[in-house]
Amino acid sequence: MNSPLKVAVLGCGSVGSQVVRLIGEQADDLAARVGAPVELAGVAVRRIDAPREVDVPAELLTTDAAGLVARDDVDVVIEVIGGIEPARTLILSALENGASVVTANKALLAEDGATLFEAAEKAGRDLYYEAAVAGAIPILRPLRESLAGDKVTRVLGIVNGTTNFILDKMDTSGAGFADALEEAQALGYAEADPTADVEGFDAAAKAAILASLAFHTRVTAADVHREGIADVTAADVRSAREMDSVVKLLAIAELVPAAGEEDPGVSVRVHPAMIPRSHPLASVREAYNAVFVESEAAGQLMFYGPGAGGAPTASAVLGDLVSVARHHRQGTRGVGESVYADRAVLPMGETRTRYHVAIDVEDRAGVLAAVAHAFAEHEVSIQTVRQEGRGNDAQLVVVSHEATDAALAATVEQLRDMEIVREVTSVMRVEGTEE
Amino acid sequence: MNSPLKVAVLGCGSVGSQVVRLIGEQADDLAARVGAPVELAGVAVRRIDAPREVDVPAELLTTDAAGLVARDDVDVVIEVIGGIEPARTLILSALENGASVVTANKALLAEDGATLFEAAEKAGRDLYYEAAVAGAIPILRPLRESLAGDKVTRVLGIVNGTTNFILDKMDTSGAGFADALEEAQALGYAEADPTADVEGFDAAAKAAILASLAFHTRVTAADVHREGIADVTAADVRSAREMDSVVKLLAIAELVPAAGEEDPGVSVRVHPAMIPRSHPLASVREAYNAVFVESEAAGQLMFYGPGAGGAPTASAVLGDLVSVARHHRQGTRGVGESVYADRAVLPMGETRTRYHVAIDVEDRAGVLAAVAHAFAEHEVSIQTVRQEGRGNDAQLVVVSHEATDAALAATVEQLRDMEIVREVTSVMRVEGTEE
Repeated sequence: MNSPLKVAVLGCGSVGSQVVRLIGEQADDLAARVGAPVELAGVAVRRIDAPREVDVPAELLTTDAAGLVARDDVDVVIEVIGGIEPARTLILSALENGASVVTANKALLAEDGATLFEAAEKAGRDLYYEAAVAGAIPILRPLRESLAGDKVTRVLGIVNGTTNFILDKMDTSGAGFADALEEAQALGYAEADPTADVEGFDAAAKAAILASLAFHTRVTAADVHREGIADVTAADVRSAREMDSVVKLLAIAELVPAAGEEDPGVSVRVHPAMIPRSHPLASVREAYNAVFVESEAAGQLMFYGPGAGGAPTASAVLGDLVSVARHHRQGTRGVGESVYADRAVLPMGETRTRYHVAIDVEDRAGVLAAVAHAFAEHEVSIQTVRQEGRGNDAQLVVVSHEATDAALAATVEQLRDMEIVREVTSVMRVEGTEE
Repeated sequence: MNSPLKVAVLGCGSVGSQVVRLIGEQADDLAARVGAPVELAGVAVRRIDAPREVDVPAELLTTDAAGLVARDDVDVVIEVIGGIEPARTLILSALENGASVVTANKALLAEDGATLFEAAEKAGRDLYYEAAVAGAIPILRPLRESLAGDKVTRVLGIVNGTTNFILDKMDTSGAGFADALEEAQALGYAEADPTADVEGFDAAAKAAILASLAFHTRVTAADVHREGIADVTAADVRSAREMDSVVKLLAIAELVPAAGEEDPGVSVRVHPAMIPRSHPLASVREAYNAVFVESEAAGQLMFYGPGAGGAPTASAVLGDLVSVARHHRQGTRGVGESVYADRAVLPMGETRTRYHVAIDVEDRAGVLAAVAHAFAEHEVSIQTVRQEGRGNDAQLVVVSHEATDAALAATVEQLRDMEIVREVTSVMRVEGTEE
């Protein structure tokens, strides 16, 4: 048998403890698949005596993460601490030291992936991160490798389980956002401080990672237009129902024509949107994740599964571990960062979207004409308009054709200022439909 | 720039012509992703002057496939002829000659994959075949690499578009098999001779390939228990509807306890089965494919997309091309055949399944007891029994708990011989439900 591969695990929380468990339990299979035994070199933790989900032999535990990654017998470092620091410094130190790295750290990759990828390139080592997006769902490897001969045109993902759980509750029970959030917290699907999920920060980091891979272009979290779900109302969800649609928080990365340029640019955004119930993403329930990929030759693909959780995320980490361990042993590398296309990342205003707008209006002649005029002034063409109720309940529901987000936003601004408009009750983008 | 990689394409039918088109159209992207230009060395066809979907420069066309794979300037051979011979001889010759191979040939891999994999191993070259199962859907790479650190326990796939289209029509329109097949043929979803699809041969080949990868065990088409959909009746489909289920042709590969053995064995089968409408596979409509994977740590994953067609299949071929081209250039290999687990492949009789049985019975006292007795005699326990109609229309619908397929089949045999049983009108396995 070949000499063992030594693995250092940084962090022993819900993911780290499952990684440690699987490395132990699957030892025989890992050895067969890697071509050498895989052994733990050490597990870096904050407190040696903290309670944890798995028994780690005391001699493997250390609070000295920096010392662990500097050891010259460590072949692969698995970083599951999360956050920017000390994770970044530890990963850079590991790579410099000749180790290959597997990480689940979406925040760090989306903020400063370039530094890490350049270090990996320089060191001639792998930096793999399947677990950073959509937990156990294999999506990064298919984008990077399976679709390497195709041209991806759009990625639409439900990549945050917390918000999907909340929106699903709102859809099935008619609850408002606050009640649905409370239920999600009670069931452990949302944290006490739900900001990162609810405001779309988590999804935006994943969107940046997906966009970078899909379009071979460096995209950071700062490039992602981000809107959360805190303002989604029960009325929005009802409006969606009436259109046989459902509200989902989508991470969207797509190629779009860039004004005055020959080559398309990249639009990356996270926001709630209505999608038709017939769309494969509409049936993604509860805290599940799914990523829908459109490409020129393959057509429409969907990848579905648990987007979070210790064991599922650990499964993704271990898959990467087997790959990088094989490469490490053979002295080769897998596919590194690919940013050759270097496309322009477009501002949200230039992105072409569709809007669903519900407007409480005065019930008098000429209202529809006035509203239609407002759309026309901004060169937004209307696909459908539905008039509902009479008198004080009169409502117009307008769905636009595709237009720039800026033109649509300006239209809504103008509607809000019109005398005949009592209130714009719901504004939401519409995705997943054909023009 | 590095020196170009030369690619020979064998076959220029619906897949081959799309491969040739994409190699041309995506040349810049392929060069960037491989790290060297990718050029066609030649395209082997049966007849030079046959009409084809893509313009191939005349100097590249040849009827001498054997001569093309023997050329010493060919780095990668793409085989999209299909069938056993001459495909096998050509692939073996290509590998011996030092080329890496990409193939979409499920029949050959399922019949004699071992010979090909051994030749690839000996030559130190890649043999990749993502396109052989479920067209554009990346499923083999995720099984082989993304889930390499996990333990797959079951794969449930809708891997034949023709039969899914037919069963979907039967479900939505109430049509019988013959009418639905005729519609599929009229729309180009079924061939004039539909045997390979309808009788499950195509799905069985894919099941063998999926099982081999999932369980690191050599499984051939001959190991797969195969039943087609020609005997599925409108009554079966109605029966499924009444159980809020739908009939699908499933390719199933799973780990099952083997009688008298400590290690589980592998059961691989293709047959129509009822699955609940709430199961993710139930919403796979028309000619789409999907593969549902259950594993210990990742949980339940699903991969969905177009399972056939020239361009989608070519996308999978090109993805493999990029991988093997990179390896070829670097003098490395990807993951080869992995059969270390070498599990026993169990006969269908030992496989544990559940049956749905609808029985026309005499309407008299004691019928239910007699039927229940027949199940009990074979140690098959009943989960639910529903009695419908009276008099000449009296029917019992029984759904069993899990039991060996042999015990269930014997129970049905006995029911057919009972005097109080007028007819066993529907027998179908039930999948995708929890026990």
